[in-house]
Formats: sequence, structure tokens, C-alpha cells
Amino acid sequence: MALVLAAAPAAAETPERDKIAATVAAQRDTTIKALRDWIALPTIAAEKRGTPEGAEYMKQLALDAGFQQARIIPTDGVPAVFATLDAGAPTTLGIYFMYDVKQFDPAEWDSPPLEGRLVERPGEGLAIYGRGAVNQKGPEMAFLAAIKAIQASGRKLPVNLVLVAEGEEEVASTHFDQVVAVPEVQAALAKTIGVFIPSAAQSKDGSANITLGAKGAVEFQLVVGGETSDKYPKTDIHSSNHARIENPAWRLVKALDTLVADDGHTPAIDGWFENVRPLTPRQKELIAEGAKLNPEAQEKAALGIGRWIDDEDYITSLERFYSQPTVNIQGLVAGYTGPGGKTVLPGRAEAKLEFRLVPAMTKAEAVGKLKAHLAKRGFDDVQVTVSGGYGPNETEEDSVLIRAQKRLFDETGIPYAIRPRNAGSWPGVIFNGPPLNLPASQFGLSRGGGAHAPNEWFLIESSEPKVYGLDQATMAYVDYLYTVAEEAAK
Amino acid sequence: MALVLAAAPAAAETPERDKIAATVAAQRDTTIKALRDWIALPTIAAEKRGTPEGAEYMKQLALDAGFQQARIIPTDGVPAVFATLDAGAPTTLGIYFMYDVKQFDPAEWDSPPLEGRLVERPGEGLAIYGRGAVNQKGPEMAFLAAIKAIQASGRKLPVNLVLVAEGEEEVASTHFDQVVAVPEVQAALAKTIGVFIPSAAQSKDGSANITLGAKGAVEFQLVVGGETSDKYPKTDIHSSNHARIENPAWRLVKALDTLVADDGHTPAIDGWFENVRPLTPRQKELIAEGAKLNPEAQEKAALGIGRWIDDEDYITSLERFYSQPTVNIQGLVAGYTGPGGKTVLPGRAEAKLEFRLVPAMTKAEAVGKLKAHLAKRGFDDVQVTVSGGYGPNETEEDSVLIRAQKRLFDETGIPYAIRPRNAGSWPGVIFNGPPLNLPASQFGLSRGGGAHAPNEWFLIESSEPKVYGLDQATMAYVDYLYTVAEEAAK
Repeated sequence: MALVLAAAPAAAETPERDKIAATVAAQRDTTIKALRDWIALPTIAAEKRGTPEGAEYMKQLALDAGFQQARIIPTDGVPAVFATLDAGAPTTLGIYFMYDVKQFDPAEWDSPPLEGRLVERPGEGLAIYGRGAVNQKGPEMAFLAAIKAIQASGRKLPVNLVLVAEGEEEVASTHFDQVVAVPEVQAALAKTIGVFIPSAAQSKDGSANITLGAKGAVEFQLVVGGETSDKYPKTDIHSSNHARIENPAWRLVKALDTLVADDGHTPAIDGWFENVRPLTPRQKELIAEGAKLNPEAQEKAALGIGRWIDDEDYITSLERFYSQPTVNIQGLVAGYTGPGGKTVLPGRAEAKLEFRLVPAMTKAEAVGKLKAHLAKRGFDDVQVTVSGGYGPNETEEDSVLIRAQKRLFDETGIPYAIRPRNAGSWPGVIFNGPPLNLPASQFGLSRGGGAHAPNEWFLIESSEPKVYGLDQATMAYVDYLYTVAEEAAK
Repeated sequence: MALVLAAAPAAAETPERDKIAATVAAQRDTTIKALRDWIALPTIAAEKRGTPEGAEYMKQLALDAGFQQARIIPTDGVPAVFATLDAGAPTTLGIYFMYDVKQFDPAEWDSPPLEGRLVERPGEGLAIYGRGAVNQKGPEMAFLAAIKAIQASGRKLPVNLVLVAEGEEEVASTHFDQVVAVPEVQAALAKTIGVFIPSAAQSKDGSANITLGAKGAVEFQLVVGGETSDKYPKTDIHSSNHARIENPAWRLVKALDTLVADDGHTPAIDGWFENVRPLTPRQKELIAEGAKLNPEAQEKAALGIGRWIDDEDYITSLERFYSQPTVNIQGLVAGYTGPGGKTVLPGRAEAKLEFRLVPAMTKAEAVGKLKAHLAKRGFDDVQVTVSGGYGPNETEEDSVLIRAQKRLFDETGIPYAIRPRNAGSWPGVIFNGPPLNLPASQFGLSRGGGAHAPNEWFLIESSEPKVYGLDQATMAYVDYLYTVAEEAAK
């Protein structure tokens, strides 16, 4: 069934499509091995793990895939990789890769997170399990397999490629602006019609999504304790002393309490909503359309919740999902965190938070407002550390990148929703914002799950005809490149 | 120097004191070995470690020390031990032991926490390092050594003894009321003139304390998450969802925020101060006197802080220390707690808190007020778990227990402060409250530190003449028993 699909006349534009598909099938085992090898080498910026080895590996992956040049771009953090492939085509396409992965705790996994074990996933097919499988090594490896297959079939690519791959996406792209500021990188990107990140967007029923942008994300930590004021002890001390000594955990609670309203979710930072653009009628229309592809009960079950915020209906909750900037607590840690209690007064309290930003908010604006808000309320003993982040991105529906996606989905009969934006984040703003001002999007037909969670997976062989496994996902990238070339020529 | 002190005419009342002191010295190595063996077997109720072995061991320690009967008293939690020693004396004294110890993390210790290593402590002398060394196995072992030495010297004890030893002191004596409710135990205790717990109360300069009671302590945890409401996810999920799904960490912050005033320390639970008795003039006098023995700079340095609450002066901070009931955050834990950030919406948030209660507050009152306070504000999704606790205790200055301490200190020239109460807690209320209504106190001349912290220690051989090592501490218990017998006869 899978092979039939891959051979189907999905995109009439792709020349010698059968030959390329046969090449994809022939190199399949090699591609799976390459994905497993890549999963075995995690780069985790937060833990300073796999750096700089991950960048060297990424560079080699690009060269192996046919990029004519690839080089390491040093930053103040984890290095990036910049590579180009000149096919002599009139159109140049930008590609963004992240080669880092999220932290993981092997104890929470059913198979070793770095093994990339192939396991039958009931009702879905054969999947590869491992950290980075879907976020983002699986889709990226499928893209590399696509350009290899075109070349191995004796063809030139229909577009030239400019690849930038960063190793700090999971720590909110702390130094990515330094990469695109390198004159050579910036000049190469400026020649592209836009930049896309390979992704796995299919639902279990085979439907897909086109996203017209993404929220921005800014991660920061608030710390109070002996290190920020001599009101607090430097280590945990006996709790009887709270009668005469301030507790940094209370101070943290008081500071946090000012950041959202009493409802526990509406941001209350001074001036927070000033630059938030409301949804347009077209965006609301897209949301209502998209809701039909994702039944509410299915969404709630997947998220493990029974109710949306304020007991709102599904459409309202979706409008909120795509339109609202958030102030989220990722984690709290202070004093004793084991089972039961322990009579200590903590020497330190930390809250890990993140903003999700929507157009036309910027990272600098959000951080500035947070600091002013805390300063105005006298929280000078609350230390703010911004560990990374970037603003939102937004791309027009009639850009080449999006037109090519629509056409591909329409011609192959993939049901899809157009989302006004992704409620998650990726640093498209680096391309989308000044000075490049390029379209930026996500694209990929394939399926996976468990990003940022245990048992992350990416579908290799699908048992559902409408859902793409590795080979079909690879062919979708082949078709996309040809469709982009044709749309750009219009 | 140490031996000279031990042989000094510290308490003229003790018959054949030199002979007993010689016995103490002769059994010294045995006592140290017994203490090390006891440290090697930790009972930690919070971790269900060393139960019920710890109770069996405690029972055997009592029998070895000359108690004629000792038996395990089962409870719904960790079992207790009840033992009696009938010396045919007119006076019976109650002894309270805790045989459990605080949790520990070996990585934070300079020597293995269960080794009981003997290490020279600069400026203090030879000390034994181990979990439970001072809290409370060291002082308790010295007491057992004292009664052994009297008997080994061919004498009967000057008082009969009733011992109750519990294994859940560090989890706020969760089931201790069940122990004293056992008719045989209650009847035995009812015959005592009061109950004391052996302790190590000497400062570095040799000064000591008499405490006329202690605050109560109630430990509880607040939990919010998928387990308490279907508004929240059951596990950590991708943080982009906070735009449409409630975050239990915010809800916890909102609930916590109502528990103390904006100053970050004054309890704000409805009706909290209703039964709080203000300090009496005598209590204030005692605090001012006691302050002279503990210079402010020394206290601040030991606690690692530069300022008291509200920048108060020392005496005010001490009055607060002894008189104010507190609502303390022991710990916070939610979502991601590792380095940096992680884009999750937590499925669970927990705050670990504790009350310290002063007369005439009770545990039932405090817990009832907390629950009413949260219910009134609609926090029905915040789960309150009371993991243990008890009310405050208070003993008159003219009770036999306290008179005997004063006389002993006066006669041996030990400088001492009388504290209106201990700002820390011990479950004396079990004896002090109804139905027993007995005096309850702490007594012991020896020195140690690091309770509830790494590198807990207890002094074995003191390099400072005024500070008691193990032998002198043991002799102080010998003298105390004879002094109690004499005071009771008055």
C-alpha cells in the first residue's frame, strides 16, 4: 500500500518521478541507519552535551547529501552550520535545520532514548523511537534523503539550496542571530525566496497543516535567595528561623503572583497587550476550518485534559491557542523537593518561565516590559535571567513557499488545514524579521510524536495509506522542491 | 582538662560521683562504638527506611541500658518503643527519645553520613560526624551511658524511668498520639513528674539554655494538577498549550499568595492570630537576658544572613523568633527543575509547607483554618495533605524539671539563658497537653550541630574546658537524675 502511494502521480511536475522513487526505496536502509546514527549522537545545549561534535556531524551530513560546501559557524554558544548547494537553478530555497534535541531522562523511556529502536506502533505502523526522532532529525533526514535521491537519479536539483543548521533551538536559539549576521550567510539567504524547516505534520487520519507563521518564545528564569540578597540565607537552614528570616520562596511567589491575573492565566505584566494584533476575519475563518480536521474529543484526549481554560468552547479555545501571548511557568524549584516534607527554610527559589509572543510583539519588548514591571513593584531582589528566545514570525498565504504547499496538498488529495500560525515556536523570525524579511514556513508530510516527552517517535512504515512513512515523506520533499521551482517561475 | 571537669564537684548531691565518673570513663569506647553502630542504622520514616529494624534496635538499646522491660508499640505508621525501669524510687521521671533521623544526601557530606567518623573539628575538639549525631542519637546515647554507669557502679537509679521512643519525629510525629493512648503507656507516664528529651544545648562558649516549651510544627503539602482537576494535564505537556489549558503551577502560586501578606512573611490565613498569646513581661525579660549570651553578629554569621525580617533590631527579631507562629514554604516543585528551561506545561505542582504554632494554638485549629481559608477562596482544586504535626508545649519555670536544670547549671557554673520557648519543635505537647498535662522539657550539656543539614556532628572530646564532651555530658545526666530526685522530694 505504501509503495503504491509513493508511486502515485502525486505531483505531475516531478520529472522521472518513478525513477527517483525507486532510488528512494533503494537507499531506504541506508537512510534509516543514518537516522539511527544521528539519534545516537545527541546535542543538548542546556547540558553542554554533544557540542561541538554535533556541528561537525551536521556538516558532514550536509556534504554527504550533496551540498558543495559546508562550514561551521562559531557563535558565543553552540556552533551552527552553513552549507550551499548550487544547482544552477534560477530559484534558491533556504532550509533551516536544528541539529540539537531536547533533554531526556532514560528512566522515563520504554527503550533507550539514543538507540533509535524500530518498534511496531499499534494502529500506526513501524516507528523509530529515540530522542530527536520527530523533533527534528526524522523529517530532516527525510529531506536529506530526498536531495540525495534526485542527484543519485542523475538529475540536478530544481532549486539551489542554502542550509543553516543551529544547535541551540531547544534553548530558544540563544545565539542564532549571530549566525545570520555573518555577511556570507546573510548574503546567501538574501538570495532565497524564503526558508522552511522540515517537519512532520500529519495527523493520524493523514490530514496535514500549513502554518502561516509561529509564535515567538522567550525563556527566562527568576531566582531569589542568598545569591540575590542578604535578607536570605545562602543555603537551606532550619525552618524555625522563618520567624525572623525572610523566605526566598515566598518572595518568588509574590513576584510571580503579579505576572498573571487571578484567573491564573491572563498575563498581567504592565503593557503586555499593547502590540498584540487581534485575529483577522480570515484567520478566524482558517481556525474554524481547521477545527473540523481535529475533533475536540480527540484533542482533549491527546492532551489529557477535560476542559479548556475558562470552560470555553472548542473554537474559542482554538482562537485563544493561536492568538494569545502567554506567560507560562515551566517549572518551580526551591528547598526540599523529595517525598513528604523537610523542615527547611530554602536558601534559593527559582521559577522557570517562558513567554509565547504573537505579532507584533518582539523579544526585546517583552523582556523590557517584564523587567520594568518587576522594578516598578520593588522586586530588585528577584534576579531575571533570559536564557534565550525570539519573536514571532508570519508569512503571507500567497508567498511561493505557501502556494507550493497548497498546490502539493491539493494535487495529492491530502486533506489539510491552514493555521494562522503555529502555537509552538521556531526561530523563523531570524529570517522573517529584519533585515532579511523572508517568508518562513514549516513543511513535511510524515508523522511522529512525543516531542519534549519520553518515547519520542517518527513513523518509518505506515499501516495507514493516507499517512506517509519515511519513503513517502522523502518523495514529498522531492515533489515540494519541484513545485517550489514551478511556483517561483510563475 | 576534660577529665578534671568531669571529676569536679559539679553536683554535690551525686553520691560516689568519682566512682561513677570512673565507670563512665571506663565504658567510653563501648559507648562510642554503640553510638557509631546506631548511626549506621538510620530510620527515616519519610523514606520508609530502617523500619521496623530501628524499633527493634531501640528496644534492645533500652534493655541493654538496664530497663527491665521494653516493648514495641505498633502504630499505623512506624512503631514506637515503651520501656520502664523500676528503681524502687519515690520519684518517676519520663524520658522521650526519637530514634529516627532526617533524610540526607551523601553527595553533600564530607564523610559517609552513616559511618560516624571521628574527626578533629578545628577549635572544638574531636567530634563524631554522622546523620543523627546530634539530632538525637548522640545526646540519647549519653543518657543511656549515664544510667548504665550508675548501675555498673553498684547503685540503683535515684528515680524510676519511663521511656517512650518514637520513630516518626522527623515527619512531625504522625502517629505518636496513638502511642501515649495505649492504656499501659499512659498509666506509666501519668506517674511521672514530667518528661524530658536529652539534647545538646551548649554554645561554643559553653553557655547553655533552659527552654520553657517549644513551638508546635505541622507539615503539609499543597498539590495542584491532573490528579486534582481535569482542568490540568496529567503529565507535563508542550507549553504552547498554556494558551488554552490551565497551568497548575500558576494555580499553586495564586493559592500560596493568599497565605502570607505582601511582606512575604506575615501569615494571612483567616483568623490565624486569634489564639496567639502575646509574650509576657517575664518572657520578654528572658529574651533580653538570653540575647547577651548570643551576640547578634555571631548569630547572623551562623545563619548566613545580613538582615533580620523588616530590618528589625536583634531584640525585636528574637521576640519574633520565640513568639510568632509561621507559615513557611519548605520547598516548591513543579514541571522542569533541571538547568536552564524546558518548554513544558507541568502536569503537577506541589508546595511543601509547615506551620510553627505557639500557645494557645492547636494543630486542629491551624489545619481547620487553612482548609476554611482555601475553601472560602474557591481553591477546591488545591489538595491539602497534612503529613504530620502537633501543637506547642509550655512548662512552668517552677516545675521540678526546670528547677533541677537551674540548680545544676548554677552549681556547676554553667552560664545559661532561660528561653521562653524553643523556636524549633518537639512533640512535648503529647505529654504536656491533655490528658497527661505533664511538664515537658529538653535537657543536656553537650554540643553539636548540622541537624537537618550535611555534616551533622556531636562533640566527643572537647578542646574547650567549658564545653562538655561525651564523658561530661554523660555525667551531666547522672547529676541531673540525682538533682531531679532531690528537687522532687522538696
